[in-house]
Amino acid sequence: MADRQVALVILGLALVVGLAGDACHVAAGTTRYEWDGVPSVWRSAVWFPVALSLSVLAAAWLSERAGTVAVRVRTRADAVAGAAVVLALYAVTALLNDTPTTVSVVLVGAIAVAVWAWWDPSPGALAVATAAAVIGPLAEIAVVAAGASSYSVDGLAGVAPWLPCLYFAAGAVAARLWSAIAAPG
Amino acid sequence: MADRQVALVILGLALVVGLAGDACHVAAGTTRYEWDGVPSVWRSAVWFPVALSLSVLAAAWLSERAGTVAVRVRTRADAVAGAAVVLALYAVTALLNDTPTTVSVVLVGAIAVAVWAWWDPSPGALAVATAAAVIGPLAEIAVVAAGASSYSVDGLAGVAPWLPCLYFAAGAVAARLWSAIAAPG
Amino acid sequence: MADRQVALVILGLALVVGLAGDACHVAAGTTRYEWDGVPSVWRSAVWFPVALSLSVLAAAWLSERAGTVAVRVRTRADAVAGAAVVLALYAVTALLNDTPTTVSVVLVGAIAVAVWAWWDPSPGALAVATAAAVIGPLAEIAVVAAGASSYSVDGLAGVAPWLPCLYFAAGAVAARLWSAIAAPG
Repeated sequence: MADRQVALVILGLALVVGLAGDACHVAAGTTRYEWDGVPSVWRSAVWFPVALSLSVLAAAWLSERAGTVAVRVRTRADAVAGAAVVLALYAVTALLNDTPTTVSVVLVGAIAVAVWAWWDPSPGALAVATAAAVIGPLAEIAVVAAGASSYSVDGLAGVAPWLPCLYFAAGAVAARLWSAIAAPG
Repeated sequence: MADRQVALVILGLALVVGLAGDACHVAAGTTRYEWDGVPSVWRSAVWFPVALSLSVLAAAWLSERAGTVAVRVRTRADAVAGAAVVLALYAVTALLNDTPTTVSVVLVGAIAVAVWAWWDPSPGALAVATAAAVIGPLAEIAVVAAGASSYSVDGLAGVAPWLPCLYFAAGAVAARLWSAIAAPG
Repeated sequence: MADRQVALVILGLALVVGLAGDACHVAAGTTRYEWDGVPSVWRSAVWFPVALSLSVLAAAWLSERAGTVAVRVRTRADAVAGAAVVLALYAVTALLNDTPTTVSVVLVGAIAVAVWAWWDPSPGALAVATAAAVIGPLAEIAVVAAGASSYSVDGLAGVAPWLPCLYFAAGAVAARLWSAIAAPG
């Protein structure tokens, strides 16, 4: 598959997961968009799916270009499974608004570690997952600080304490998304 | 294993999953049986496990006879895992009575897609899963319309909006249940 | 890897899972420690992580020494996945305080069976899992009877009805933990 096609498939997958997951957060009151007059797609302000999709694509492409070695070779069917598992975890976080922080962080964190250990238990995927767990929440903290959105549970500098765990899982899968989509099968 | 034995094992598995899953729905108030005087098995009206088991057997047998090609060869241990995963998802749906529809549908849908992509990401299993996601809820809509049972969340013509997703997961697993049970290991 | 190192890694894994899981139970009010003046580690009375880690080590070592045959060869990355899945299930049980018993037992039981069928669907692992599902809750029943701790849902002789299912999953994974950690990869 040509690079451009791979990139388009990744953008499409990230768009579906991002929009559906964010719709869960908005529907459950986990997050709220605070700026009026911004066009929306489904339940998201338009900038959210754009930023998320490009971030996932960047993570997948950089991870591929960096030449980190995969422990498990993933296929296109695996990419569907990986995206579905991340989306399921995204939806689970929308159920945790009244859950004690200890429980929500341990639950999402344990699943995130299991996703990494299942999808590709390599140092490379661990590095991408860890980077995502740091950069993603920092970006969202900046967005919240700018007043564009807010979290109902906001104990981590304005965002939810389990947010790094969700980004960790997404980053682990993104680390091998390029090779999975580009694979012949 | 002889065909008759395979059929009996599938009926038994479907009976366990159907009765235990339905008991969850009744216990949580997700569903209610409305006709008095019908004999019950555990928490189900007697016709439910009969109809469900025969439907699963029919799906498994038709999928095998249709000669659709599996991407992954499944064993008897996998059949236990597949049945257990479907039952776990069945039980999860009993936790979603107060969950916004967006969240419940995305959660159950994402897990259902992951089940298909894990169990057998083939076009054949996708076709069986999709057929189950259409036929199963239609049959339940008819049952509800006849007044035999009801759903507490009934936004999809009288049944729960996540019901097609649950049938999708069950159909995906049923599609390879015959070959998994008949397998030597 | 030398036996002593394997034992230390297993103790460490069990300590992390036990402390984090127990912290979820205490935070959610699922369990409560009743004796004052006992030193605590995180949210646990100090005797709990000690007893749990040694029990997991004993189960892993006895299972290895008994020479039960594994159906699936597990690696260190799998051990991380197995421990993470058991911890996730542990955290899930902290969400079930207001869930009908039928639903909580079926949910945790179905996931426990799926864990066994995924991790190592062997008679040996089944035996260890079953032994854990009997001995673990009996030990906790004795602890509760002695007044050292209590469960908020206590329908099984003072402990939660889903507790055997959680021990079943932990026992299944423990059965192959020694060989997984000792494996070259």
